[in-house]
Amino acid sequence: MPKGNLTVLGLGAMGSAVATRLREAGYAVTVWNRTAAKAEPHVAAGATAAATVAEAADAGDVVFVVLLDHASVREHLDPAADRLRGKDVVNLTTTTPNQSRETAAWAAEHGIAYLDGAIMAVPDMIGTPGARLLYSGAENAYAIARPALETLGGAEFTGADPGVASLKDMALLAAMDLMLLGYLQAIAMMRTAGATAADTAAEVEDWLAAMLPYGKEIAAIVDGGTYDTGGQNVDFDRAGIGSLITASREQGVSAVLLEPHRKLLDELAAAGHGASDWPRIIDRLTITR
Amino acid sequence: MPKGNLTVLGLGAMGSAVATRLREAGYAVTVWNRTAAKAEPHVAAGATAAATVAEAADAGDVVFVVLLDHASVREHLDPAADRLRGKDVVNLTTTTPNQSRETAAWAAEHGIAYLDGAIMAVPDMIGTPGARLLYSGAENAYAIARPALETLGGAEFTGADPGVASLKDMALLAAMDLMLLGYLQAIAMMRTAGATAADTAAEVEDWLAAMLPYGKEIAAIVDGGTYDTGGQNVDFDRAGIGSLITASREQGVSAVLLEPHRKLLDELAAAGHGASDWPRIIDRLTITR
Repeated sequence: MPKGNLTVLGLGAMGSAVATRLREAGYAVTVWNRTAAKAEPHVAAGATAAATVAEAADAGDVVFVVLLDHASVREHLDPAADRLRGKDVVNLTTTTPNQSRETAAWAAEHGIAYLDGAIMAVPDMIGTPGARLLYSGAENAYAIARPALETLGGAEFTGADPGVASLKDMALLAAMDLMLLGYLQAIAMMRTAGATAADTAAEVEDWLAAMLPYGKEIAAIVDGGTYDTGGQNVDFDRAGIGSLITASREQGVSAVLLEPHRKLLDELAAAGHGASDWPRIIDRLTITR
Repeated sequence: MPKGNLTVLGLGAMGSAVATRLREAGYAVTVWNRTAAKAEPHVAAGATAAATVAEAADAGDVVFVVLLDHASVREHLDPAADRLRGKDVVNLTTTTPNQSRETAAWAAEHGIAYLDGAIMAVPDMIGTPGARLLYSGAENAYAIARPALETLGGAEFTGADPGVASLKDMALLAAMDLMLLGYLQAIAMMRTAGATAADTAAEVEDWLAAMLPYGKEIAAIVDGGTYDTGGQNVDFDRAGIGSLITASREQGVSAVLLEPHRKLLDELAAAGHGASDWPRIIDRLTITR
């Protein structure tokens, strides 16, 4: 006895993982993919294949959208708008916050309950406790879809602004991106002295794990907003980052990843903030406030 | 009964912490500082103040140098070179690897056993297990000074190249720097949706802690050197970083910290490496190899 009727649009690596997990959790799953052949293993495992998006939309009470990008979401959903009316649409496609908001506005015009999701996991992690999925938009759609959503991984409703799940996803990914570049910078520097990447990464991992809690101190300074706690200031940090850049270049390693930090500090110093706490550079990052 | 005679040149925050710790550990400590007043609390606590660097050099078997920068090391040590002959000099001043090598060459010319140190700690941590100090250069000087060095924190000899301790210090600091910028980027993005820095930092800390082990995978790819493991490739990563940059700007947050990553990926793609594993960007970082 299936738990309910769900549709999955898009059977790339992530869409396939989502469709498989939902089917294994006991839902009747209808799948659609632009290249129909990708539906075959799902059909063999018990799913139903739909020939068109509209037909797939008819089959599910909740329609999961796991397409390549925002453009493909609009390309495939627009013609089926009338058939999606009254349905819950959960868009798990990776999009920017504004793209999420745009799709939400389109859904509202067509009487579709829209939930925007962001998947903080790789496809292999779907259905495991390590997968984390953020949702924002229509809270009633979240409430209805929640049992299914919880089969995919940890589910978190982040707010009514449909862009917030994507924003949080992007913010966390940006932080991860810079951390991973930090590994590469350190590996590049240390291999000039013959260290393997594995040895350097092990050192970096221990070091960063010890330094992670410093984020809380930075946050307290930013939330405080006065930048006068007497901790490491802009001028001190300029000297430090200058040494890092010099050391990197002396070793024949580009400092291109480090240079924006110095540029932001230089701008702050030029604006008379040399004695401010260094996290004040966040004000140089914020363009429109 | 003092354990031995040590000299500390430089009584800034770090030099004072080092002098205090060595004295508390039972050594007879002679201090010198350009501004003599800074020696007073040390003298009150049992240290001896020297009027000149040369006089301070005479008093200690091991001479710790904890000055502002490389220029001040050379400025103050050059005139006392003859008085330092036969001594062990442990230079804890923050310098670049090449500056460390330059001081080591100068020391060798003057018959001074030279050990270059890098302190991975703030002054308050000196003497605690959390402080980590790296040393490189003359291994015999390390062996002689080791009991004293171990009172300052965890001590690690990293090799005979006097620049290696500094290099490792700089490499780890560069990784930390990028990680901390990641916090700020995420905080800047999330505060456009009303999130406090504290809330974002807590999220980022958990997320980065979970992602830290990914550094090992990056390292395996770099050590492998073929960049064809079939993991996330340059073209995929370009799309991902492009979305991050777009999302950041849409929210009114500068993407200046993220742009170098895209630039490196664009360069790789232009060189025909779009299908390579993305950590191949390390080759764009390495200028001279």
